[in-house]
Amino acid sequence: MRPTLAEIGLGPGKKGRLHRILFRHGLGNGTALFLPYDQGLEHGPRDFVANPAAADPRYIIRLAIEGGFNGVVLQIGSAEKFYWDYAGEVPLVLKLNGKTDVPPETEALSPLHGSVDDAVRLGADAVGYTLYHGTPAAQADFTQLRQVREDAHRLGLPLIVWAYPRGSAVDAKGGRDSFYQIEYAARVTSELGADVVKVNFPHPNKRSGVPAAYDREVSTQDAVNAVVHSAGRTLVLFSGGEKASDEEMLERSREAMEAGATGLIYGRNMWQREHDDSLRFVARLREIMAKYPGN
Amino acid sequence: MRPTLAEIGLGPGKKGRLHRILFRHGLGNGTALFLPYDQGLEHGPRDFVANPAAADPRYIIRLAIEGGFNGVVLQIGSAEKFYWDYAGEVPLVLKLNGKTDVPPETEALSPLHGSVDDAVRLGADAVGYTLYHGTPAAQADFTQLRQVREDAHRLGLPLIVWAYPRGSAVDAKGGRDSFYQIEYAARVTSELGADVVKVNFPHPNKRSGVPAAYDREVSTQDAVNAVVHSAGRTLVLFSGGEKASDEEMLERSREAMEAGATGLIYGRNMWQREHDDSLRFVARLREIMAKYPGN
Amino acid sequence: MRPTLAEIGLGPGKKGRLHRILFRHGLGNGTALFLPYDQGLEHGPRDFVANPAAADPRYIIRLAIEGGFNGVVLQIGSAEKFYWDYAGEVPLVLKLNGKTDVPPETEALSPLHGSVDDAVRLGADAVGYTLYHGTPAAQADFTQLRQVREDAHRLGLPLIVWAYPRGSAVDAKGGRDSFYQIEYAARVTSELGADVVKVNFPHPNKRSGVPAAYDREVSTQDAVNAVVHSAGRTLVLFSGGEKASDEEMLERSREAMEAGATGLIYGRNMWQREHDDSLRFVARLREIMAKYPGN
Amino acid sequence: MRPTLAEIGLGPGKKGRLHRILFRHGLGNGTALFLPYDQGLEHGPRDFVANPAAADPRYIIRLAIEGGFNGVVLQIGSAEKFYWDYAGEVPLVLKLNGKTDVPPETEALSPLHGSVDDAVRLGADAVGYTLYHGTPAAQADFTQLRQVREDAHRLGLPLIVWAYPRGSAVDAKGGRDSFYQIEYAARVTSELGADVVKVNFPHPNKRSGVPAAYDREVSTQDAVNAVVHSAGRTLVLFSGGEKASDEEMLERSREAMEAGATGLIYGRNMWQREHDDSLRFVARLREIMAKYPGN
Amino acid sequence: MRPTLAEIGLGPGKKGRLHRILFRHGLGNGTALFLPYDQGLEHGPRDFVANPAAADPRYIIRLAIEGGFNGVVLQIGSAEKFYWDYAGEVPLVLKLNGKTDVPPETEALSPLHGSVDDAVRLGADAVGYTLYHGTPAAQADFTQLRQVREDAHRLGLPLIVWAYPRGSAVDAKGGRDSFYQIEYAARVTSELGADVVKVNFPHPNKRSGVPAAYDREVSTQDAVNAVVHSAGRTLVLFSGGEKASDEEMLERSREAMEAGATGLIYGRNMWQREHDDSLRFVARLREIMAKYPGN
Repeated sequence: MRPTLAEIGLGPGKKGRLHRILFRHGLGNGTALFLPYDQGLEHGPRDFVANPAAADPRYIIRLAIEGGFNGVVLQIGSAEKFYWDYAGEVPLVLKLNGKTDVPPETEALSPLHGSVDDAVRLGADAVGYTLYHGTPAAQADFTQLRQVREDAHRLGLPLIVWAYPRGSAVDAKGGRDSFYQIEYAARVTSELGADVVKVNFPHPNKRSGVPAAYDREVSTQDAVNAVVHSAGRTLVLFSGGEKASDEEMLERSREAMEAGATGLIYGRNMWQREHDDSLRFVARLREIMAKYPGN
Repeated sequence: MRPTLAEIGLGPGKKGRLHRILFRHGLGNGTALFLPYDQGLEHGPRDFVANPAAADPRYIIRLAIEGGFNGVVLQIGSAEKFYWDYAGEVPLVLKLNGKTDVPPETEALSPLHGSVDDAVRLGADAVGYTLYHGTPAAQADFTQLRQVREDAHRLGLPLIVWAYPRGSAVDAKGGRDSFYQIEYAARVTSELGADVVKVNFPHPNKRSGVPAAYDREVSTQDAVNAVVHSAGRTLVLFSGGEKASDEEMLERSREAMEAGATGLIYGRNMWQREHDDSLRFVARLREIMAKYPGN
Repeated sequence: MRPTLAEIGLGPGKKGRLHRILFRHGLGNGTALFLPYDQGLEHGPRDFVANPAAADPRYIIRLAIEGGFNGVVLQIGSAEKFYWDYAGEVPLVLKLNGKTDVPPETEALSPLHGSVDDAVRLGADAVGYTLYHGTPAAQADFTQLRQVREDAHRLGLPLIVWAYPRGSAVDAKGGRDSFYQIEYAARVTSELGADVVKVNFPHPNKRSGVPAAYDREVSTQDAVNAVVHSAGRTLVLFSGGEKASDEEMLERSREAMEAGATGLIYGRNMWQREHDDSLRFVARLREIMAKYPGN
Repeated sequence: MRPTLAEIGLGPGKKGRLHRILFRHGLGNGTALFLPYDQGLEHGPRDFVANPAAADPRYIIRLAIEGGFNGVVLQIGSAEKFYWDYAGEVPLVLKLNGKTDVPPETEALSPLHGSVDDAVRLGADAVGYTLYHGTPAAQADFTQLRQVREDAHRLGLPLIVWAYPRGSAVDAKGGRDSFYQIEYAARVTSELGADVVKVNFPHPNKRSGVPAAYDREVSTQDAVNAVVHSAGRTLVLFSGGEKASDEEMLERSREAMEAGATGLIYGRNMWQREHDDSLRFVARLREIMAKYPGN
Repeated sequence: MRPTLAEIGLGPGKKGRLHRILFRHGLGNGTALFLPYDQGLEHGPRDFVANPAAADPRYIIRLAIEGGFNGVVLQIGSAEKFYWDYAGEVPLVLKLNGKTDVPPETEALSPLHGSVDDAVRLGADAVGYTLYHGTPAAQADFTQLRQVREDAHRLGLPLIVWAYPRGSAVDAKGGRDSFYQIEYAARVTSELGADVVKVNFPHPNKRSGVPAAYDREVSTQDAVNAVVHSAGRTLVLFSGGEKASDEEMLERSREAMEAGATGLIYGRNMWQREHDDSLRFVARLREIMAKYPGN
């Protein structure tokens, strides 16, 4: 069951901003579809080869507006230079940390490059932070997250945490997409104070090195249910990762909403295709999301 | 001519929040109708005698939502205790200073009781500040306003200034409602960095002690035009003051919008009457405002 | 003799910004013609009656550019909302304090409404401060000036002080335009750390209540010479005050430059007339200033 | 297409200072030629062997003035001791970090030695920061850059980022001059909030270890185009690196301007030769840049 | 050529304090002889074995006074406890950082133990800081130096930097005494904003691992000349290091002064001998320095 905004202990700033995102944009029914655009930093311009127009942040922000998204996710530089033109037309989620994929990820850590004060100044309605669950660099990661959480609390901005299992220890225990690690990551994020958590879809068949409790047959739906359940009063978004087939994404989306997720956050699956095709895919997602209204 | 949001030198936070107020609430056509509710501090509970229900902030916030207002104005205490329930449903303008009407107003000054950080934390979309134009206490007043302006700039919140001529010197030169003082107040507020200025309707027939340039016959419309013109790129709201007849208020409202004002901010004229009567009055105001769309 | 920039003890920021103002704008010969526009706050919109177009800050900034001025002086609000369009085309002097003319001036004080940090952020090349020489409110005035001076030093911005004799004691000793008070004001400002001082033209015939040394026949030129001499290594600008005849202003200007003033700062004499007439007047001033190059 | 200053989301300070650099110095046509002089720290005095006169910062600053450069880049020490004489004659870019080439670059990081406040105090028109894209020391690098970006925003100074791929991971994936790493570096810098990015010319034939999308035949012009495109609204400068033949540099320069770069920043290619030869080379560069005016 | 105090961009505090050191103490001819006394921390009491009296800071301060030194260099503890008796009789240079020689120097860093505020409080006329050129710990070193430089600027104290090549990378490229590393260190220190740099005498025959430009025959005088030249407007002091023969020290001193150095800073060569012998050695140094007056 998806929690309601009135029951999850939020102050007025967080509650009001989440209300705006969930009920005054997109379908306005308490669900959310976000358009993330941090890949230029995370993976580099190679992600724009499939649809060169997507290299331009204006294209992405316009797509978010035309597609009726509940928010667009930008890094500080793109927000500073491109959001101004469209300020207020679609909610902004300011991503506060990020890293390139050049160095290896054995000690994964995503350094801060922006602040909650930046987010307020830019008129963002939420902030995003990537936590690398299981990384040997957890001390630096927790320290950064604590600062962001405190600032987000002080200024009343919802905190959305990208919860990604990463690092040498994760590789040895199920891997980054395993049900075990994804569920654990959702729980950790909830325990650390996120208002919303973004996770990848769990793969219950990845069991190499997982604890005994996870070394059994689990349906995808049950795994998704468990992830949402473990997140408690932290709202859950499922992300898409690399581009997959539309039918697969739609089925995953249905499972997510069925499990009580608040919504979806699809980037490459959204804009690594031609513009009108993106809008058609959005329309199909909205059909699904319309069946799961919240309050 | 009313300035557009794109041309008045705003950063993304101020632009986005004004866009939200002007284009995603109320008529959504770039005009604004605000519901101010600072009278419990400014005048005391005597203002609620005409309609005892109005003593309850919930009544006022609900009225703002039902009436499709572009914002409700609350002091810090009412915002803390009552806005939570409705956070995000109607924009909040947090009024940051206020005073009682117990001491005389010869050296009028409205002390700060809240901060822009409070406003951000509560999810407000703008802050309000009362400047007493012409007061002998100008040094304290300018100092307070400077702090609020700097914080509002830093955090990207629009600054709405209540520009009220007050004090012994004002009384000797036209008085608080004179065309001379109102226009001067609008100009001063613009020079001091307000994004929006709220003034009372000017009375061009109040000429006792005014400079020669103002000691002549001027129509009400010309006076209103002059006030809006003198405010430059600072958006103008006209306020109602004490309750007057509906026809008078509607005529004034028409003149204000005709002059290029962005909107109206009516309190006692709005809620010192029965609930449904308030909504009927709102409907008539919206008819007028619909004729003056902006962009 | 006008001091050179290399000999007056400036750090690189102040020297570079003054070099820019004096040698890369206007005539580029070390003289300066400034266009001040603080009258909307100081006197109110009545100053714009003679030429209503001048109520629009854009008109003034454009006039400064077209007329080849060395700088335009704006208050914080006009700078925030109007300078952006023309940023870098003409140097900005941000005026940091100001007052209305509504209360009496017996205890004249001009409260701060902006900061040197604001000036830097807006790309201003200098800051302006009004000091009321002789006011009973000197303690507050000196305190404000001290803060501005320290910040201007820290950030390397030239400090231009409007040195105006004001207050009940000044009225009793020569008055605000007397040679005695003007020269004293220039000296005080220099002693308090201004880089540039702006004074009105001294009237040596105003001798009521002045000390014995000033109670004698002095030519206007000698009085102007004395003011410049008393300012030492603080550069001197003469201001125009209320509109006077062109011939009178030109003669005064010649005297000022002859005395070693760095330049002129004329507002109402400049823009209380029709646009092309302003440019013709500028051309005649530039003829005079071209005869007094500095280095 | 080179972005215009009016469309890239700049506040008045950044816009005014960039206007000054691009339109009031050099060719004044919106292009820029910078003279960097950080090699004494980065490589040591050995870089001055080819032209011993270049060891003297005065020689370099004078060359910048005589050659009509749009700016000279100095470290804090040279700026403190040598810029004063020429303050305001040529824009100063204060480089805020730097390192020697004594230790190995596997974990490359360029420590801060100056601040944006220093830059303002010295009258600089922009600040420079070296980001080592791909370095294992990214957390410290991002942290430093974030502080510089926030201060530059607060004080209105344009931020120019030297974006250099470096470190063991870069060496394994294309290397520091590869098209892949240069384009990625330009994008990262844009995402992190630089106003201007300085990159070396990309070498599309360096493909060892690059992602599949880059493992193909690409012309130099197409690679340069891609780098400028990926930088979005961040203006691009191409740097020269070690001294090469004039014809090669001129051809590279033409390609850069053709791609929409804002300009060039050549150090060793400029001053590792005799004085008059430097000016002749500048003249040829200006011929190219004159063909690519901006607005 | 030694720079004059009037041409090196100093504010009045730094200029006045250097004037006091250079022209009102010692020979009073613009040269300087300093007595450093940081060896108790750097090497421990073993340095006092040769002359046990030198273990007493009083002995050293008296020697500085009797010998007519231009300054004595003390760490915070010695300054606190011993300078009081002689305050004002000989200028104090407060050394702000230092380290023991117990750990290896592969990642050499000299931690701060005092502040510029301490120096002002103690009446010091300058501060000293040790920078380890080429150390892998450059980030911490630059960060400390930046703070000291900013404070010294703010408070007007001259900053003397001990520029010592150190660390594993230095050892591999010429070593700590090589001409290459010493010249590079002088240049780096100048670029980082030192007013005075203290270096050891360069050894041009140490060429193992140096860049090609340094792998050639160079006379000692030419090397010393190059070091002074590379320091630009940063005044240069040569230090003595371990005790050597008097004739060798005198020849080195003559070369240093001939090259344009401002002076000498000899510790162990001065006080690791009997008292009167020290004074005789000082007398011979003064004979040399008297031949190189500055202005």
